[in-house]
Amino acid sequence: MGQYISGFSKLSKAEKIRWLEKNYFHNNTEYNKILESYWNPDKKRQQLHDEFIENTLSNFYMPFAVAPNFLINGKFYTVPMVIEESSVVAAAGNAAKFWAKRGGFNTQIISTKKTGQVHFTYRGDKKVLFDFFEKIKPKLLDSVVQFSERMQQRGGGVTAVELVDKTALIENYYQLDCAFETADAMGANFINSCLEQFAQTLKAEAEKEGPLDSLEVVMSILSNYIPDCLAQAEVRCKISELGFDGMDGTEFAEKFVLAVTIAQREVSRAVTHNKGVMNGIDAVVLATGNDFRAVEAGVHAYAARTGKYTGLTQARIDGDEFVFTLEIPLALGTVGGLTALHPLVKVALTILENPDARQLMQITAAVGLAQNFAAVRSLITTGIQKGHMKMHLTNILNQLNATEEEKTIAKAHFGRCKISHKAVHEFIQSLRK
Amino acid sequence: MGQYISGFSKLSKAEKIRWLEKNYFHNNTEYNKILESYWNPDKKRQQLHDEFIENTLSNFYMPFAVAPNFLINGKFYTVPMVIEESSVVAAAGNAAKFWAKRGGFNTQIISTKKTGQVHFTYRGDKKVLFDFFEKIKPKLLDSVVQFSERMQQRGGGVTAVELVDKTALIENYYQLDCAFETADAMGANFINSCLEQFAQTLKAEAEKEGPLDSLEVVMSILSNYIPDCLAQAEVRCKISELGFDGMDGTEFAEKFVLAVTIAQREVSRAVTHNKGVMNGIDAVVLATGNDFRAVEAGVHAYAARTGKYTGLTQARIDGDEFVFTLEIPLALGTVGGLTALHPLVKVALTILENPDARQLMQITAAVGLAQNFAAVRSLITTGIQKGHMKMHLTNILNQLNATEEEKTIAKAHFGRCKISHKAVHEFIQSLRK
Repeated sequence: MGQYISGFSKLSKAEKIRWLEKNYFHNNTEYNKILESYWNPDKKRQQLHDEFIENTLSNFYMPFAVAPNFLINGKFYTVPMVIEESSVVAAAGNAAKFWAKRGGFNTQIISTKKTGQVHFTYRGDKKVLFDFFEKIKPKLLDSVVQFSERMQQRGGGVTAVELVDKTALIENYYQLDCAFETADAMGANFINSCLEQFAQTLKAEAEKEGPLDSLEVVMSILSNYIPDCLAQAEVRCKISELGFDGMDGTEFAEKFVLAVTIAQREVSRAVTHNKGVMNGIDAVVLATGNDFRAVEAGVHAYAARTGKYTGLTQARIDGDEFVFTLEIPLALGTVGGLTALHPLVKVALTILENPDARQLMQITAAVGLAQNFAAVRSLITTGIQKGHMKMHLTNILNQLNATEEEKTIAKAHFGRCKISHKAVHEFIQSLRK
Repeated sequence: MGQYISGFSKLSKAEKIRWLEKNYFHNNTEYNKILESYWNPDKKRQQLHDEFIENTLSNFYMPFAVAPNFLINGKFYTVPMVIEESSVVAAAGNAAKFWAKRGGFNTQIISTKKTGQVHFTYRGDKKVLFDFFEKIKPKLLDSVVQFSERMQQRGGGVTAVELVDKTALIENYYQLDCAFETADAMGANFINSCLEQFAQTLKAEAEKEGPLDSLEVVMSILSNYIPDCLAQAEVRCKISELGFDGMDGTEFAEKFVLAVTIAQREVSRAVTHNKGVMNGIDAVVLATGNDFRAVEAGVHAYAARTGKYTGLTQARIDGDEFVFTLEIPLALGTVGGLTALHPLVKVALTILENPDARQLMQITAAVGLAQNFAAVRSLITTGIQKGHMKMHLTNILNQLNATEEEKTIAKAHFGRCKISHKAVHEFIQSLRK
C-alpha cells in the first residue's frame, strides 16, 4: 500500500528498494531480485548508469540492434537502432536492402537553425521599447560571450536576436526571438544558458531606464519547434523495378502514391503514418544518445504547421520513375549530453563511423523514410499483421514459456497459417496434451 | 568502412558482432567487449531480451527509477519512470511532494474510444455503395468474432462500423471507420486483425455483386489519432498556499497562468511546453511496456486538433484558488505486448499496485501534469538551467573521469556558483594542478 515518504532521494539504492519491498512487494523479495538481476556486474559501470538520473534502481533493457545495408549518398551504413517493438528493425533492414539495389537514399541538409525565446511583458510605449532594444542589442550579445566562445570555435553561436511584438496574442507580451547554430551539439544547454543571460541583461538594462521599469521577464527557454532545422531524404527508381507480391510496378506505384496521399489529407491516417516514420527515427535517436521527446515534439508540430496535420512523406510518379521523399525537422547532436557518457552510444557512433551532426541528421532521415516505405508497402500488399505477427510469434511463445522444441514446431506450423495470440496458445496447449 | 551484406539477420549474435568488428571497429575488440559487457550474465534472461526484436546485439540501458509521493484521487503512488534525461525524475518527485501537501491530483477518464479504418476506393454510384454496406454490415461484424470473442469477455470489442464518404478529399476514396473498446489492452493487434478481416469480407462481398467490382482496398490499420481516448488530471489549491522563491502566492499564480497562456497561444513555446509534459508521460509509458511513439503521435496531433498547435495544460485563477489541468489522449495497456514479457515492466506494474488500463491512464496523466508544473515553476522562478545543471553536474564530472574525492569537492563548490561545462572543466583542471 502506497504511502508518503520524506527524504526518499537521500536513501541509498538498497534502502530505496527495501522501502519498495516493504510497501509494494509485501515483503516478498522476488521483485528485489529482479531489479538486482539487471544490475551490471561491474560496479563502476553500474554507478555511471545510476548517476545518469535520480532515484535509479536498475537498468531498463531496450534492445540495441543494427540494420545493415543503408546506402546513403553512395556510402553503405549499418544503422544502430534501440527499440522495443518487434519488426521495426527487420522492416528497416528490408527497405534498406530493397533500395540499395535501386540507387539507395539521397539525403541533404536544408537548414540547421535553432531558436529560443525570452518571453516578457512590458506596459508602455512600443517605440520606446524598440529603441531601447536597438540600443542594448550589442550589450545583449556581449553578455553571452562566456557561453558562446567555445561554440564559436566549433562554428556555431548566436546568429540573431530580434524583438518581436506579440501583443496581438496576449496584452503586453513581447519576445526576444533568438536564433542559434550549435555545430555538432544538440545545443540545449548552450541555448538555454544564452537565453537566461539575455533575460538578465535585458532586465538589468531596463531597470536603468525609467520608462522601462514595467518590463518583466516571464521565462527564457529554447524552442523544440524547429521548422528551419531540416533534413531531407529521397529514394527514386524506375517504376518497372517496383513489382511486389504479385503486383506489377505500375499498380504498386499507383497504390503506394494513393496511400501516401491519403496520409497527406486524412488526419486519422496521417498520425499513424508519421508514427511509423518515428519508429525508425526514434530508434536512431535513442541509440545515438539524443532526446526523443524533443525530436517527437518538433516533428509532429512540423506536421501540423499548415494548420492541418499531415503525413510527413510525399510520393509521386515522375515520368517513368517512382519518387518517395521525407522532409523532417531534426535537432541532433553527436557531442555533449549522453553521447560522451553512455558507452553504448559511443559504440553506436563508431558503427556510424563517427558522423557529425549534419551527417547524423541525414542518416536518421533516411531511416525514417525506409521505415515508412516498409510500412506502406506492407499495408498495400500483405497487410501489416502478417509481418508483425511473424516477428511477434517469438514473444508470444516466450510469454507461454514454450521450450526450444515447442518453439521450433510452432514456428514451422505458423509459417503456413495465421498467427493470433489465441491460435498460438491453443497450438502450444495441443502440443502439451 | 561500410559495405553491403546479404543474410545478416541469419548470422548468430557473435557472428554479427564479428562482422561489425571487421568493418567498423578496425579489428579492435574494445567495442565488442563493450557490447558484451552489457549482456545479462543469465543466458536465459539474455535470450528473452535478444528475442524481443531482430538483430539484437546488446541491451541499451535506460535508467529505471521511481518518483514517490504521488497522491492521486486520495491514494499514494510511487511511480516507476524510465528516462535518460537528468532532472526529470527529481522534478516529478518535487512536484508530487508539493501537491501531496495541497490535496494531491484529481484525475478521471473522459473516454476510451479507439478507432481504425479500412481505406478503399470505389468508382460508382454512391447510393449503391451505401445500400451494399447496410446489407453486409452484419456479415462484417460476424467475420471478426474469431478475434473479438476474447476481447468481449474482457469487456471490449467492436463498438461501431461506419461507411464514410471521403471523396471530397480524394476522388473515389471511402473509409470503413471503425470504433473499438480494448479493455486493459492497448489493443493494436486486436484492432488491426479486425480491420484486415473487415477488408477481406468487404472485398469478398463486393466481388459477389456486379456493380461493386470496382471496389479496391488500399489499406487497413488502426489510428494513433485518439481524440476520444482521454484522461484528465487536475490540481488546485488556495493561492495563499503557493508562495515560492520570494514570490507571494498571487504573484506566483498570475505569472504561472501567464506562462501557461503563452504556451496556449504561441507555437514556439507550445511545442516545448508539451515536450516537458511528455518527459513525464513517456517515462511512465516506457516503464510500463507501452509504445511511446504511438502515445507521442496521438498527443501532439491532439495538441494541433483545432488547426493551431497549442499547449496541453490549462491554468486559471478561480476565486481564491489556483487551478491547473491537463487533458491528454492516452491509449495504454496493462496486458499484452511487452507488459507480460519484460520482467522490469512486471516490477513497474507491481509498484503501481497492478493498475487496470484506466488507472494507468490517470496515473500517467498526473505525472504529465506534475512534470509540467515543475518545469513552468522553474521557468518563472529560478530558470530551467539551475536545476538542470545541478543534476547534470554528476554527468559532466563522470565525463571528465573525476575521482570520488574530486566529485565531492566539485559538488560543494558548485553548490554556490554557476555550472557550465567549461567552468566544471576548469575547476577540475585546477584541482589536478
